[in-house]
Amino acid sequence: MGLKDKDLLGLENISKSEIELILETAKSMKDILKRPIKKVPTLRGKLIVNLFYEPSTRTSSSFGLAAKSLSADTMNLSVKSSSVTKGESLVDTAKTLKALGADAVVIRHGIPGSAKLLAETIDMPVLNAGDGAHEHPTQALLDMYTIKEKRGKIEGQKVAIVGDIKHSRVARSNIWGLTKLGAEVRLIGPSTLIPVGIEQMGVKVYNNLEEGIEGVDVINLLRIQRERQDKGYFPTIREYTKRYGLRKEHLKLAKNDVTVMHPGPINRGIEISSDLAYGEEAVIEEQVTNGVAIRMSLLYLLLGGSRNE
Amino acid sequence: MGLKDKDLLGLENISKSEIELILETAKSMKDILKRPIKKVPTLRGKLIVNLFYEPSTRTSSSFGLAAKSLSADTMNLSVKSSSVTKGESLVDTAKTLKALGADAVVIRHGIPGSAKLLAETIDMPVLNAGDGAHEHPTQALLDMYTIKEKRGKIEGQKVAIVGDIKHSRVARSNIWGLTKLGAEVRLIGPSTLIPVGIEQMGVKVYNNLEEGIEGVDVINLLRIQRERQDKGYFPTIREYTKRYGLRKEHLKLAKNDVTVMHPGPINRGIEISSDLAYGEEAVIEEQVTNGVAIRMSLLYLLLGGSRNE
Amino acid sequence: MGLKDKDLLGLENISKSEIELILETAKSMKDILKRPIKKVPTLRGKLIVNLFYEPSTRTSSSFGLAAKSLSADTMNLSVKSSSVTKGESLVDTAKTLKALGADAVVIRHGIPGSAKLLAETIDMPVLNAGDGAHEHPTQALLDMYTIKEKRGKIEGQKVAIVGDIKHSRVARSNIWGLTKLGAEVRLIGPSTLIPVGIEQMGVKVYNNLEEGIEGVDVINLLRIQRERQDKGYFPTIREYTKRYGLRKEHLKLAKNDVTVMHPGPINRGIEISSDLAYGEEAVIEEQVTNGVAIRMSLLYLLLGGSRNE
Repeated sequence: MGLKDKDLLGLENISKSEIELILETAKSMKDILKRPIKKVPTLRGKLIVNLFYEPSTRTSSSFGLAAKSLSADTMNLSVKSSSVTKGESLVDTAKTLKALGADAVVIRHGIPGSAKLLAETIDMPVLNAGDGAHEHPTQALLDMYTIKEKRGKIEGQKVAIVGDIKHSRVARSNIWGLTKLGAEVRLIGPSTLIPVGIEQMGVKVYNNLEEGIEGVDVINLLRIQRERQDKGYFPTIREYTKRYGLRKEHLKLAKNDVTVMHPGPINRGIEISSDLAYGEEAVIEEQVTNGVAIRMSLLYLLLGGSRNE
Repeated sequence: MGLKDKDLLGLENISKSEIELILETAKSMKDILKRPIKKVPTLRGKLIVNLFYEPSTRTSSSFGLAAKSLSADTMNLSVKSSSVTKGESLVDTAKTLKALGADAVVIRHGIPGSAKLLAETIDMPVLNAGDGAHEHPTQALLDMYTIKEKRGKIEGQKVAIVGDIKHSRVARSNIWGLTKLGAEVRLIGPSTLIPVGIEQMGVKVYNNLEEGIEGVDVINLLRIQRERQDKGYFPTIREYTKRYGLRKEHLKLAKNDVTVMHPGPINRGIEISSDLAYGEEAVIEEQVTNGVAIRMSLLYLLLGGSRNE
Repeated sequence: MGLKDKDLLGLENISKSEIELILETAKSMKDILKRPIKKVPTLRGKLIVNLFYEPSTRTSSSFGLAAKSLSADTMNLSVKSSSVTKGESLVDTAKTLKALGADAVVIRHGIPGSAKLLAETIDMPVLNAGDGAHEHPTQALLDMYTIKEKRGKIEGQKVAIVGDIKHSRVARSNIWGLTKLGAEVRLIGPSTLIPVGIEQMGVKVYNNLEEGIEGVDVINLLRIQRERQDKGYFPTIREYTKRYGLRKEHLKLAKNDVTVMHPGPINRGIEISSDLAYGEEAVIEEQVTNGVAIRMSLLYLLLGGSRNE
């Protein structure tokens, strides 16, 4: 069994069993990361290109480290959005990368669908590291891995996602993935930040934090984009923090052993209080580690690493 | 047999047999790039420094991948032109790189002769990755490799170079190399963009595209620098495209199986039409791959890799 | 025997015998750098992060090459000072690096004490690559290594440090280290650039260059920060050069075989004349090479490389 597609573009068009395979493989990868020499020769001589049209340290580093842990070579291309504005140019860039010897491309781009366009153009695996407000599948997969690791399973878990759902590719990918694996997904946020009609994706919507987190197993907080809120969006940061910022006192509403997640980097004192961010319920650093394991898993599965072992 | 010089500064001062050796060696290197694990340990423990005073993704990536394919370590120094303005400073930088353990330096600089200055200063191979409008020898070598690969030989081939010859280091290096190997070189462009008296280099000049490409084996299109033309140079982009932009209908003037080349990145719809850029006559991506092979060849020959095999 | 601390934060809080161990280990490392394949597998699978909040090419390259020579993987994070302004954020960054799999962090930061803050926060070695005007211990260690190498010993050597002592972390670390190892340290500069009361550190202060270098074994010139002097500080660059710029004629005042040092990059014609910078007394390039050896030594000692050999 393997992945149906040559790419990982999103969790919308991937099956439950494929997600399970990715999570299962990530488990073996995490074991490698615990070794004294956290490196295997599986992808030696392969070249992974990080093609980032939006700035990123966290995700590109994670992919880079995943590649290195599998002994692949990496090449980072950080493209200022100004220099590439048309899909046509992206196609030319893709052709050049292929010709340079790339074996897989990790792409982040501000325009939804750009990863798909790239995948249709080149004959090698494309991994979506975020395309506009569309999908960010590797973040969702690492979130799901963390839930499974912490809570034993995903099916039946009540997961609350809190924040600016409307602009969040992380939320979107999590919804696709979690619902496929049988979790109950709740979205919490002000009505201005939740897309109208999103209930059709099989989720429940709450505008009140206290109501939304009642009895949940997992609270996944999205990062507030301060720049966006400062530009006159409603609510202001101060209002948001007052109504949706998670504080210690909220946790008693959730399950006893509730797990608190955040994709990072956190705005401490805004979407989460400092004591919670460092509290025992939070698994924020574990998520970072799991991110490397998930990306190793995907590189391994998509680059057919199995043939070399 | 080997290279006479410790450096590769240009094709003006290199012999026919040396060029042939570089092309021959590149062929073995290209074979390595086709393997499942496209990597050999030849230059393990060597350090190649990319010292770029002008921005470059394409050439610096190509050198970097060539180094990695030979298992060398690489270090990228992208220096903003502002911080280094005098040759003297370049000398100090060179001394520091040597002391840091560099085994070879790849340099791109806006001032003609800077690669030569560097080579005279330090006791290690210097590879010119473009010095002003002077030379860009590795681009010319990969162009020649591509011609040989596609057409069987270089001698006797009719090669048309189209565009802004005046400001093009690519054109200059191609002229030196191609004439040495017995090709017939034609330069095509408006008289404002062709240096007066360049016929002395053994080339023919045409101001008319149709006349120039009549019966040629190869058409090598230079990239138009839109920034330069926008600053009031004659002709304008629109005029240039009308008179010198290559379109499908032109090809019937050339040899039946004409080869169309471009150093990239292409301005589609300007110096070349979209259908041609992706047409079967174009070998633009092959050129990119051959660029890695040529640079591997040079690193191998200049760093005496042979001793380790 | 080993290092008492998990980190290298400065030379103030490190013992004489620890410094001697670092210098001794660096000697073996320098031998590795002389080999045809200048690389050992000691730290294979380890990840060293360069976390630089101030721009640096020289020091970050040196650490990077030291890591590569020990076969460690490296990750460079160059953070613009604007995006991280509070110690709290530094703590979050540290937690993320740990979670990503970092085994050691090299930090440069504009605020004194930031390396210490980082070291207290994370459970892995932290190496200070310069924290404000506080300490720059690896530069001082490579200076001391160079003195020992050139002059046979450090004890009893008369070492003059010339320049802007007040703003120099290099001077501060050198003072701590050299006095611990029994050298006689003299500080030379205009009174505006020498901290009041610094004699308490066991050094002698001279405002006159000729008097200060009389009979010294070593002259260590600090780089003048032209930007700072241009902002109205006294003296001006011209005045400084006239009174403190080292010229050939000065050397007859010092020991016959005086050693001239400079951390680089040099301002030729300002703090040192061109002929001296390239003269036989200068060991500026040797210092660069020794810098790689010292950083290899530290990475080796702090990451417990000994266990793998």
